[in-house]
Amino acid sequence: MMHTSVVGCRLNLGVLFNGLLVAVIAALLWQYSKLREHATMIEEELHMAQRSQEFTHTNIDYHLALQALHEDGTRMVCSSKMHTDRICRFEYLCYCTEGDEFVFFHSNASIMVPNLGSRRFQPALLDMSSVEDHNTQYFNFLELPTAALKFLSKPVFVPDVTLIFNRFNPDNIMHVFHDDLLPAFYTMKLYSDLDERARLMFMEGWGKGQYFDLYRLLSSKQPLLKDQLKDFGKLICFTKSYVGVSKMTTWYQYGFVQPQGPKANILVSGNEIRQFSEAFMVKMNITRKEEVEKDVGNVRDESEKDGYIVVFSRLTTRLIVNEAELIIALAQEFKMKVFKVSLEEQSFPSIVQVISGASILVSIHGAQLITSLFLPRGAVVVELFPFAINPEQYAPYKTLATLPGMDLYYFSWRNTKKENTVTHPDRPWEQGGIAHLEKEEQERILASKQVSRHKCCRNPEWLFRIYQDTLVDIPSLLDVVREGMKTRQSFKKSKPASIIHPGKVRETQCQTSVQATDKAQLIISWQIPWNLKYLKVKEVTYEVWIQEEGENTYMPHIIQQQNYTFSENIKPFITYLVWVRCIFNNNLLGPFADVLLCRT
Amino acid sequence: MMHTSVVGCRLNLGVLFNGLLVAVIAALLWQYSKLREHATMIEEELHMAQRSQEFTHTNIDYHLALQALHEDGTRMVCSSKMHTDRICRFEYLCYCTEGDEFVFFHSNASIMVPNLGSRRFQPALLDMSSVEDHNTQYFNFLELPTAALKFLSKPVFVPDVTLIFNRFNPDNIMHVFHDDLLPAFYTMKLYSDLDERARLMFMEGWGKGQYFDLYRLLSSKQPLLKDQLKDFGKLICFTKSYVGVSKMTTWYQYGFVQPQGPKANILVSGNEIRQFSEAFMVKMNITRKEEVEKDVGNVRDESEKDGYIVVFSRLTTRLIVNEAELIIALAQEFKMKVFKVSLEEQSFPSIVQVISGASILVSIHGAQLITSLFLPRGAVVVELFPFAINPEQYAPYKTLATLPGMDLYYFSWRNTKKENTVTHPDRPWEQGGIAHLEKEEQERILASKQVSRHKCCRNPEWLFRIYQDTLVDIPSLLDVVREGMKTRQSFKKSKPASIIHPGKVRETQCQTSVQATDKAQLIISWQIPWNLKYLKVKEVTYEVWIQEEGENTYMPHIIQQQNYTFSENIKPFITYLVWVRCIFNNNLLGPFADVLLCRT
Repeated sequence: MMHTSVVGCRLNLGVLFNGLLVAVIAALLWQYSKLREHATMIEEELHMAQRSQEFTHTNIDYHLALQALHEDGTRMVCSSKMHTDRICRFEYLCYCTEGDEFVFFHSNASIMVPNLGSRRFQPALLDMSSVEDHNTQYFNFLELPTAALKFLSKPVFVPDVTLIFNRFNPDNIMHVFHDDLLPAFYTMKLYSDLDERARLMFMEGWGKGQYFDLYRLLSSKQPLLKDQLKDFGKLICFTKSYVGVSKMTTWYQYGFVQPQGPKANILVSGNEIRQFSEAFMVKMNITRKEEVEKDVGNVRDESEKDGYIVVFSRLTTRLIVNEAELIIALAQEFKMKVFKVSLEEQSFPSIVQVISGASILVSIHGAQLITSLFLPRGAVVVELFPFAINPEQYAPYKTLATLPGMDLYYFSWRNTKKENTVTHPDRPWEQGGIAHLEKEEQERILASKQVSRHKCCRNPEWLFRIYQDTLVDIPSLLDVVREGMKTRQSFKKSKPASIIHPGKVRETQCQTSVQATDKAQLIISWQIPWNLKYLKVKEVTYEVWIQEEGENTYMPHIIQQQNYTFSENIKPFITYLVWVRCIFNNNLLGPFADVLLCRT
Repeated sequence: MMHTSVVGCRLNLGVLFNGLLVAVIAALLWQYSKLREHATMIEEELHMAQRSQEFTHTNIDYHLALQALHEDGTRMVCSSKMHTDRICRFEYLCYCTEGDEFVFFHSNASIMVPNLGSRRFQPALLDMSSVEDHNTQYFNFLELPTAALKFLSKPVFVPDVTLIFNRFNPDNIMHVFHDDLLPAFYTMKLYSDLDERARLMFMEGWGKGQYFDLYRLLSSKQPLLKDQLKDFGKLICFTKSYVGVSKMTTWYQYGFVQPQGPKANILVSGNEIRQFSEAFMVKMNITRKEEVEKDVGNVRDESEKDGYIVVFSRLTTRLIVNEAELIIALAQEFKMKVFKVSLEEQSFPSIVQVISGASILVSIHGAQLITSLFLPRGAVVVELFPFAINPEQYAPYKTLATLPGMDLYYFSWRNTKKENTVTHPDRPWEQGGIAHLEKEEQERILASKQVSRHKCCRNPEWLFRIYQDTLVDIPSLLDVVREGMKTRQSFKKSKPASIIHPGKVRETQCQTSVQATDKAQLIISWQIPWNLKYLKVKEVTYEVWIQEEGENTYMPHIIQQQNYTFSENIKPFITYLVWVRCIFNNNLLGPFADVLLCRT
């Protein structure tokens, strides 16, 4: 528009134009500066938001964190009445490296739930490892008033949400998985802020250990070791932390209170173990070669159908003396590839890669068998036991393999020939040596044909026997493996069992009639559980319990249809209590429907 | 600078200037638009970040949520081995409004920890209210495969993190606080995502109830009632939820299994109750008039020193017949203001406002006494009981008031004069009427002087007696209040007791010497607990336990100093086990130091 103006006026227009432009520039500059200000502010907000997502507190917030510690003290809220079941959530839990004690700071705003008084020491607030009620694993803290902070070293804050616990035995791969990784994995699933960005803190006091890389898979941050805290300062305060791990996934007790064996009340199924294994394989960048599952239903070529066998080899103790022979025999007998793996020679992920596609895993009893949690569904586990060791008494792997939903086939083989065992009586006691024992005791052990049940962990007879090397009697082992193969084949033809329980039966009803002065009937009817119509269940039955009012015993009945007339032992003018539940495939029990009161 | 240029060149300069300005504007405009673009993008990001903070999922994410439900199914991870202690965290827990059942969807990726099999029905997965193991409060779910989703109504997702539980009795203010608000408050402190933005979901099936506003204080969102779910749809899926509440803060059991009384194992102290009360007062915008605490140490004017008395009045049942007289007598006797409050006439916050500054609370037994959790420290609670009611048997408020750290002074008064009681035998049974009972039973009840211990909840004698009106014998009540005042005065002069427990004694050492063939000594020494130097403790003692190895009994000793020579019953050539712990003020026990082995 400016350019179309009259030329004669140019100078004036030029001046005017100049003035206008200056005004426009001024306005623009003002707006620009406002906008820049706005943008800077927004950028800052966004930056802070991002930063406070990365670090809950940064160094800049040191002052704030210190103020919060001074004013609020420590805040603790725990789950569970029993110390063996407890996990506690803390804000500003501190740890004094010099005294080797956790510290709870009391202020007017500190919180302690539960507040146990001195019951806190009977015996402890909680277990720091997944091993139950073990006196080396107890957690407690020292109490101080926040006023004491001014006499103490300035605290160093750990800004990450931290999961604090004890690894139980980080040098043993079975313990690593059973006691630490599985429990930590599911503890982290219990608390929403224990995510990828969480920090793990191991307080048992050990070094990294050879399986540290596995622990690193639990979150994106490097776990802390107790010894490292000293380098940070004298007083370390965790802004947000959880202490303790869930025992929900453990299946074995190690014999501290009674001889070792499966836990009395196992709360985990193979499905949850497998969810864990899958997640860990993803983190190790391992893709399962689904040889086994792909083959299901393919009956063309028996020889190719069954993938491969893995023989787990130990290189220092508890050897299979004729391992090479064994491997050849397996390959010849089953016409399958046989791979040998060992923890001493291969990386753990590379072993998992092999195991994850195996059809059969053969191994002498030992920690390496924990790798069976990476076996594909339908695989066979064959565990070998040295002479005089009763497989039934040492069953962590059998228990794992036979968890419902684990879908593994477990078989054990036992060296029953004394001439096939190689003993090491002169080794140090912790490797099974017995030279330090009295002559008579040595002779008793050497003559014994089976180690008796015993508690953990230093029974010399047990150590002597479990550290024997074994010359495997190949024909008898092949028998066991053959049996495993057969079971596996028969499984392949069947579909995996449903794990879904029936719902309550609905519309339970009761009609009664009196036949004679001493004879009556109950006609009980009900509708199928609501979820049955969405399921393919092979066999549906119903269980009916009938109890005469005031009596303690009841009559259970298994019924095929949805109604039934009961006349046996039914008397007139009596009130009967009737419970009905549905059962799928003879083993999945549903809940009882509300009790029916039937008056004859 | 432009203005100082030579005048003769003005035109050319003008043109040049124009050109320059245009260039500057162009550059500015370009930058401006770039900046605006940048700012818009940042603003959008910020907006999205804020939105996704407000709603974890919005309607836009419906497709994603549905996909997650189809692929992952339900995921559950719970705390605790026992159903009475359990709280479960869920992703994609669903609820079918038609069947009135929660639904767990099974997929290959669904998680169920613990996986209890049919133990899940024995008797339940968990308690949905804080009342322990009550058969109307059990939680369970129906199982379905995700494949069933295609036959069901499209799910409606609740995007908020939801705390799902049963209110136990939302019409009774005592139950509201004890069973629901306190448990929910501390459950929310246990899980980081149960914050201000969490949603509460009440599944007991009641309407809002008259105290709904109190429940609304727990988070910024309106709680949902079970009945409202029907309006949303047939299948409601909670993207993230917790089911169950902590029982950690409850102190009373209502007599379902044994006669009512304090819980056997109380895990809460007055400090945590008070943290809750303070938080609730902040949410109700109530500032405590700290009359009581301000007055501590001020001994100038006895009459003004003690704030005021509150008499809690009931207007429909369990009346104090001579309430007006009582109020006048209290005012005259103690020269203090007396305020009357009642739930029927005032808003709850206004009552809390009054209670929060009171020195003495006088009330007949009843739910309204739960308001004593808002009393200031040092206040006196006087609870009145109708004729034939033994105060010891109905002690929810006594238990509350006497929790350590609650710092209240509790006294009870009991109507012992039959002529002062007003009975209502002809009312409905639930208000204590007994007309429906057999004549003989009516006469027995009328003649009885004390209700025997009984279980909850329909004992007609108990209902008859507890619903009596009472003519209070004023002199005997004044005696009780006077005793309360006296105790309160003596407390004011003393400082509140420390609640900090001793740490372990350090550097425990043992020296032994043999005096004769049958005489020996143990010289045990130790250092003070680490936290003692930061505390002012009136009395520090040590407890030493000495046990002969192999024996089951031990000798306990209380020692004042930090070492002691034991010679009584100490024999030569014996190993003694020695434990040492510190005790503050005769009641705060520390933990035992590690056992010492002393060989004489």
